[in-house]
Amino acid sequence: MMQRALFGRCALFAQQTAALESSMAPRSAPALLRQDRSASSLTVPPPACMLQPLEAPFRYLFGPGPSNVPPRVLAAGGRPIIGHMHPEMFEIMNDIKKGIQYIFQTENNMTISMSGSGHAAMECAVFNTVEPGESVLVGINGIWGERVAEIAERMGANVHRMVKTPGGYFTNMEIEQAIAKHKPVLFFLTHGESSAGLCNPVDGIGDICRKHNCLFLVDTVASLGAAPIFMDKQNIDIIYSGSQKALNAPPGTAPISFNDRACHKMFNRKTKPVSYLFDMAHLSNYWGCDDKPARAYHHTGPVSGFFALRESLAILAEKGLEESWKQHKEVAAHLYRGLEDLGLKLFVPEKDLRLPSVTTIAVPEGYDWRELLMYIMKHHQMEMTGGLGPSIGMVMRVGLMGYNCQKRNADMALHALADALKNCKKSRA
Amino acid sequence: MMQRALFGRCALFAQQTAALESSMAPRSAPALLRQDRSASSLTVPPPACMLQPLEAPFRYLFGPGPSNVPPRVLAAGGRPIIGHMHPEMFEIMNDIKKGIQYIFQTENNMTISMSGSGHAAMECAVFNTVEPGESVLVGINGIWGERVAEIAERMGANVHRMVKTPGGYFTNMEIEQAIAKHKPVLFFLTHGESSAGLCNPVDGIGDICRKHNCLFLVDTVASLGAAPIFMDKQNIDIIYSGSQKALNAPPGTAPISFNDRACHKMFNRKTKPVSYLFDMAHLSNYWGCDDKPARAYHHTGPVSGFFALRESLAILAEKGLEESWKQHKEVAAHLYRGLEDLGLKLFVPEKDLRLPSVTTIAVPEGYDWRELLMYIMKHHQMEMTGGLGPSIGMVMRVGLMGYNCQKRNADMALHALADALKNCKKSRA
Repeated sequence: MMQRALFGRCALFAQQTAALESSMAPRSAPALLRQDRSASSLTVPPPACMLQPLEAPFRYLFGPGPSNVPPRVLAAGGRPIIGHMHPEMFEIMNDIKKGIQYIFQTENNMTISMSGSGHAAMECAVFNTVEPGESVLVGINGIWGERVAEIAERMGANVHRMVKTPGGYFTNMEIEQAIAKHKPVLFFLTHGESSAGLCNPVDGIGDICRKHNCLFLVDTVASLGAAPIFMDKQNIDIIYSGSQKALNAPPGTAPISFNDRACHKMFNRKTKPVSYLFDMAHLSNYWGCDDKPARAYHHTGPVSGFFALRESLAILAEKGLEESWKQHKEVAAHLYRGLEDLGLKLFVPEKDLRLPSVTTIAVPEGYDWRELLMYIMKHHQMEMTGGLGPSIGMVMRVGLMGYNCQKRNADMALHALADALKNCKKSRA
Repeated sequence: MMQRALFGRCALFAQQTAALESSMAPRSAPALLRQDRSASSLTVPPPACMLQPLEAPFRYLFGPGPSNVPPRVLAAGGRPIIGHMHPEMFEIMNDIKKGIQYIFQTENNMTISMSGSGHAAMECAVFNTVEPGESVLVGINGIWGERVAEIAERMGANVHRMVKTPGGYFTNMEIEQAIAKHKPVLFFLTHGESSAGLCNPVDGIGDICRKHNCLFLVDTVASLGAAPIFMDKQNIDIIYSGSQKALNAPPGTAPISFNDRACHKMFNRKTKPVSYLFDMAHLSNYWGCDDKPARAYHHTGPVSGFFALRESLAILAEKGLEESWKQHKEVAAHLYRGLEDLGLKLFVPEKDLRLPSVTTIAVPEGYDWRELLMYIMKHHQMEMTGGLGPSIGMVMRVGLMGYNCQKRNADMALHALADALKNCKKSRA
């Protein structure tokens, strides 16, 4: 018992004490400890911070994500794990696949979750469907298009950017003209452009892409579950999302789906995708989406993350997508009214173009947005954020997503904003 | 209340019932339901499996990983999350960095965790330190070297393979000769070659690499915390590991560290790494390892995964690395004796070359290894596994790592093996 204690927590304190003592008068130490120190081959001692318990404060996560995770999802993610290749795990992955098909409104067989955040899905989509030298067209009216453009450039694509300032959007005519001009194999658009708080209209774009033999890739990280999207009906070829927004799972998993057109392109390529980890030839086997009878080891999936993702998909399936969309719309409308009552201006003037999950407020005249947000964090334990990428300095963002999407939370956010407006000096007035 | 119930779980049952009813005699349904159905724009209904609760059986995870996660780590991973960019999260990441420095025995500033499994770290290491066209030398005596070779080939490196059959290892002279011949910028070796159960000797290789102006990359996914490794003392330039082995965290995070030589190479490259997500120029900023005062948004890290990783690092820091190494060695020795008592043959004959975390047993004459493993899983709820890659059909593998590394677990594994040997027919005898 004594030995065990010495090798446990006490040993660390003893080592630290010993280090102190070496510069002091010699004192007798237990024989075991002395022996241990002299035998030690370690040059880096255990860090003192690791003897302190993990501390994380409670926060109202009313920014653009991650959002608060409901207890049910936390509990699922905290369950004892099983192996990543156990038959029961494959069953759970099969359930996840069906849950993702539902939330994307697709019957695509090639539907999986990435073992990573939305950026992993973004790279997976581009790496698999584009080959070096091919033309890619990217719609940029915020940060996400810029990210996709950079990803495509790095893997050697010939990237063409269509750019609008945050809050702007592309008409289908503009998109068709650009597609006709650049003849891309892939056109990218973000559905929920969270940096601007804009929900890009996507209707009809899938048809344009088909006409021009181009794949249509849509990012729904910030919009999924909050704003209607219909992968099959809208002829979207590749779609992905994230776990930590309206799905309310912890970050680290990302649903993605490819239709037959996308599969045809990605499974008939001349070169291998540049990433082994994100190669859909392997991932499709791991998820049981190919025609092979057995699933081979590819990488170790985030078992706890998949438990949590399954639970969050179950919650959305129980609630129903349409009810979830309705709820986000109603709570957002409630928030808009409250913001206008506070004299604040919504960044996106067209009501129908606003993203129901993330609302952007024009930074009020004379205020320092950083000061407002810091005040709200400090006094209300509440996260709201500033802009992102091109929208920095233009907007403050309030996200009420999934579990957080409740009128009482909107009221709390409004109360916090009112308090901040009252107490933060008009420093730039 | 009624409306809420209808839109919740009940609505799903109602929809399913309604679908059944449509082919039956007309019956009256509540007005709300009828209205809802007609207004529905969904083509994919909520999947029935999502109305069933998540089920995962208890398993003794005595394979090569993931291993069982202790309650303390599960609890940490199940805590309410905070934002990925909150100051408290950065503090937790700073703690993780110190914990990783300790387990790698390094003072490298450029020490982080990947937001992904060991394969993410593998790609990160290669993508950042190698440019297309450069020469890479890979030691292959199991599966992991083959993976690195494939990753390096995909990003355009000029890959040279040194190959031994599983159980074999490379002498330093062989390595130096190959390095002199191929003049690689990077030499890769797996410390814990879990597919063969071999712990590759790494002493002296770092010096050889320095002499030849080559970086030394070491995979410690299966060995970390179980077998001694000293990044700084052994002149290892890049090292990575995984969370789900002796660290006993859920899979999905992966410690990685780069020394100054590696940083010099990766931050003075002509081309951008092919992956934006794994670009250390961005990841180093996210982890506060560069000289910039602020951390910019790069991707959303797995907050719950980092909570769990911190806890698992804390447990190892409390216990002490040397105690952990000692424990793995002792429990492995206990297992070896028991296996030999059962008449089983260890796959790696040289005791000093055996990996203490994952023991490989030569498939006993006349038995079908699949049958043995399935028997153990079915009757003992215990995972042991077969070989991986080139060792498939050669070995059965027993992993007792970190939390699982206890003599009583070794005894349980031995008991299960004895039972299987007794009850599984000698089908190939």
